[in-house]
Amino acid sequence: MTIERPTALQPEMPATRWGDPDHAIGLPDGVRDLVGMVFELRHTPAATEVALPATRLTDGQIAALQGLLGAEHVVTEDALRRLRTRGKSTPDLLRQRTGDLGDAPDVVVRPGGHDDVAAVLAWAVEQRVAVVPFGGGTAVTGGLVADPASAGLTGVISLDLGRMRGLLALDPVSSTATLEPGLRGPEAEALLGEHGLMLGHLPQSFEYASIGGFAATRSSGQSSAGYGRFDSMVVALRVATPAGEVRLGASPANASGPDLRELFLGSEGAFGVITEVTVRVRPLPEVKEYEGWRWPSFAEGADAMRVLAQGDLLPTVLRLSDENETAINLADPESIGGEGSAGCLMIVGYEGTPSAVAAKKAAVTTTLTGLGGRPQGSAPGEAWAEGRFNAPYLRDNLLDVGVLVETLETVTFWGNRQNLYDRVRTALTETLGEGAMVLCHVSHVYATGCSLYFTVAAPGGEDPLATWLPAKAAACEAIVAAGASITHHHAVGTDHKPYLGAEIGEVGVEVLRAVKRAVDPVGILNPGVLIP
Amino acid sequence: MTIERPTALQPEMPATRWGDPDHAIGLPDGVRDLVGMVFELRHTPAATEVALPATRLTDGQIAALQGLLGAEHVVTEDALRRLRTRGKSTPDLLRQRTGDLGDAPDVVVRPGGHDDVAAVLAWAVEQRVAVVPFGGGTAVTGGLVADPASAGLTGVISLDLGRMRGLLALDPVSSTATLEPGLRGPEAEALLGEHGLMLGHLPQSFEYASIGGFAATRSSGQSSAGYGRFDSMVVALRVATPAGEVRLGASPANASGPDLRELFLGSEGAFGVITEVTVRVRPLPEVKEYEGWRWPSFAEGADAMRVLAQGDLLPTVLRLSDENETAINLADPESIGGEGSAGCLMIVGYEGTPSAVAAKKAAVTTTLTGLGGRPQGSAPGEAWAEGRFNAPYLRDNLLDVGVLVETLETVTFWGNRQNLYDRVRTALTETLGEGAMVLCHVSHVYATGCSLYFTVAAPGGEDPLATWLPAKAAACEAIVAAGASITHHHAVGTDHKPYLGAEIGEVGVEVLRAVKRAVDPVGILNPGVLIP
Repeated sequence: MTIERPTALQPEMPATRWGDPDHAIGLPDGVRDLVGMVFELRHTPAATEVALPATRLTDGQIAALQGLLGAEHVVTEDALRRLRTRGKSTPDLLRQRTGDLGDAPDVVVRPGGHDDVAAVLAWAVEQRVAVVPFGGGTAVTGGLVADPASAGLTGVISLDLGRMRGLLALDPVSSTATLEPGLRGPEAEALLGEHGLMLGHLPQSFEYASIGGFAATRSSGQSSAGYGRFDSMVVALRVATPAGEVRLGASPANASGPDLRELFLGSEGAFGVITEVTVRVRPLPEVKEYEGWRWPSFAEGADAMRVLAQGDLLPTVLRLSDENETAINLADPESIGGEGSAGCLMIVGYEGTPSAVAAKKAAVTTTLTGLGGRPQGSAPGEAWAEGRFNAPYLRDNLLDVGVLVETLETVTFWGNRQNLYDRVRTALTETLGEGAMVLCHVSHVYATGCSLYFTVAAPGGEDPLATWLPAKAAACEAIVAAGASITHHHAVGTDHKPYLGAEIGEVGVEVLRAVKRAVDPVGILNPGVLIP
Repeated sequence: MTIERPTALQPEMPATRWGDPDHAIGLPDGVRDLVGMVFELRHTPAATEVALPATRLTDGQIAALQGLLGAEHVVTEDALRRLRTRGKSTPDLLRQRTGDLGDAPDVVVRPGGHDDVAAVLAWAVEQRVAVVPFGGGTAVTGGLVADPASAGLTGVISLDLGRMRGLLALDPVSSTATLEPGLRGPEAEALLGEHGLMLGHLPQSFEYASIGGFAATRSSGQSSAGYGRFDSMVVALRVATPAGEVRLGASPANASGPDLRELFLGSEGAFGVITEVTVRVRPLPEVKEYEGWRWPSFAEGADAMRVLAQGDLLPTVLRLSDENETAINLADPESIGGEGSAGCLMIVGYEGTPSAVAAKKAAVTTTLTGLGGRPQGSAPGEAWAEGRFNAPYLRDNLLDVGVLVETLETVTFWGNRQNLYDRVRTALTETLGEGAMVLCHVSHVYATGCSLYFTVAAPGGEDPLATWLPAKAAACEAIVAAGASITHHHAVGTDHKPYLGAEIGEVGVEVLRAVKRAVDPVGILNPGVLIP
């Protein structure tokens, strides 16, 4: 087929905030009142106030890159380098806001396809320069913060995949589509939608995150109950590595030895640059219905999720807020139909054909009712669906007025859920003090366990970053102590790297290092990220 | 919990045949007539007629192993070494039948647990002796045929996991069970059944294959449509490697970097010895219903399977025989209710609670009827279920009378199914000649593709092995040419090793070698298997 490309591209995000400034939302009064910790508007340096460090690449090196890709695709201007500095975690934003641009890349290069990527990697190996793949720039665990010195390298290339936004192939019989890594979520869905198809991967970062990033970080979306994690949607990968090209995924599943796709999924740019991703696609749903259910407690709601997952009876969307998050989310009583903000709110969503939705909804409703859930109608579901991508905008507003807001997440087996919840909550509240709000929800479920996603809001103090980092460390230590995974879908990056060894063991770390040496012997790929 | 162990153990299989001699079945007249190529009963050397090569281990080495595990767990007697020689492919059986015992291990050692395994590995590294893990002994691709000389080693230990048959832990809330690798399929199901639970993994080799083998070879069972492949059931693994212990699987799924479980799944003993497998378990089904459906052609039946898989509407069992296999299977018209043997027979099975089975059956029936399928009632389904483990016994009977019988399998995307089918069929019929029967079925389906399982029966001639090997090679080359996977669930072993490079590429092979060096630097683990 002819390569199809999106007609409408997602705009650039500002360096210090999330999303499209035109879509920014105000700070609702309800949230302002509830938080009870709003201070004055803090000073945010304008993006142009702070100068970047000078590029460490020589004029000759820049000229060589221009020779490879064309001068227009090799950019050293501060404006773009600033936009390619770090990701969108709260620490990232706080550092940008205080003018700390020490992690800026030395040059931004924009390859047009796999061969361009391979050429840049070969050049970078020869020149001993680090390469950091940049997709949507939505990393929240320090995955875009390379440490070239750790690998004996002299500079950092931000490998901006924004030109690689094609739908390369579509096989409607096999239900597969081959996408380039630079496509943002909405762009990929728009291209597939032209064919009546969709991916159905909707993480919080959907509007800006990229296909390559979804694969490289094992993203999981808000419809994971119905459509699975992103890694489970991936059928095949093409990867450029310094050791050569890798093509994996000759079939849906097989017994041809270890599944090497699973080594490159989650490799966060450290094993190669993903240049093509073949995914399972689905027909666009004819029906979408989202509704609310009320549970007396988080434990009872979570147990109902477990029953659905273990009974192979999962709807498309399944989320459960704990008592604290429910109270905040339902502070506007009009949104929930009169039951107030007590108990725990569950969002249940169904998508598909009318008959499939009706059958699933009937079975789920019977099960949830039997377990003590109380249906709340469609209003809470619609409210959730409408605001599903708003949280990062709200975070910006709260950061503006001195409130520290951040999220973290983990995953464990059902039998360990309460223990993990208690440990992480305690770690956060003890570190941040009485004034902190700690909210939690379950948004990804499996037959054997579930994720826990925590949102924290606390007085930021004079140095919000210094307020947050000990709390994050305490939470990570609590996760390790509970025997859970350090991340369910935010990836390892640099922030979680100190805790990975506890999860995969010394031999596991040695295996990662061995693979790294095989595919990237000089160590140019995202040095300092992922591998302890 | 206290470790639970099976009260009834599966008996040993004979060296030259499949299964329990007490359960052997005769050669049905119908099959004898149909095959039309039955010759005289061939001579099969009695198991005790042929002497084994002398052990290559010294008395001192044997004594050292006895010191590690206890004298009773270190066996050098010919009788047991003969039973630990090779697996149960037709070439394996033919070699055993002609008295070729050149691949016999030098000693059989039986560790009692993880620590014993680790001790044997450490000793083997020091002594430069190969270690071949032995679970059920049902390998069909040469996975038990180590080549110690290729790694500069001086002998072969068969690491018989038969003492490691415990249910180590059960978490009914999380629906997980931790099993030792030596448990055979029926033994594991019996232990879980005591708790009202099951695994639901039923490959053709179920009666003898082991939990460790299922994991090490990425087995797939007859209920894969409903319960998934074995690798998808695995939650956690404990592995003993020469580099140390590996424990993986801190959570159901996560974003903690590459999924290293997927490196040890399918590693066929080359990366370590799997000593514990934690799997998802399910409640025992209250209802089991198997029925037949008739399709005008293989293509139309396969397309119906595709519609079910892509509509997330899979029953528990879903199989489809091509026209040739249908004609053989339905040679007895009583089994199918009067429609004769025309067209293609599909088996559809439902297991679960009465309400879940009823709902799924109604939806599947509507879909299949709409696509042109004709229901055949329960007789074909029951007949299939009753004979589901008989094929290897029948193979023995046919080998006895000079008929070459063997199977091979592959997997591809739906859009490539017909091409793959045509290429492999042509390769087999052209190599084996007009007298050969080539049958095929689809027994494992995915949203994006399906497996193809071929059964071949042909006049064996004076040297059935020499008749088969060129046909197998031609089929493998056809699979590679079609861009499919060299194996869907039989694993790589030594037989498929020459074709793995075409599937995973040069860098993929280098990654396997790098992992091997990291976990097994001396190369004692199953040398010559898996890694090109």
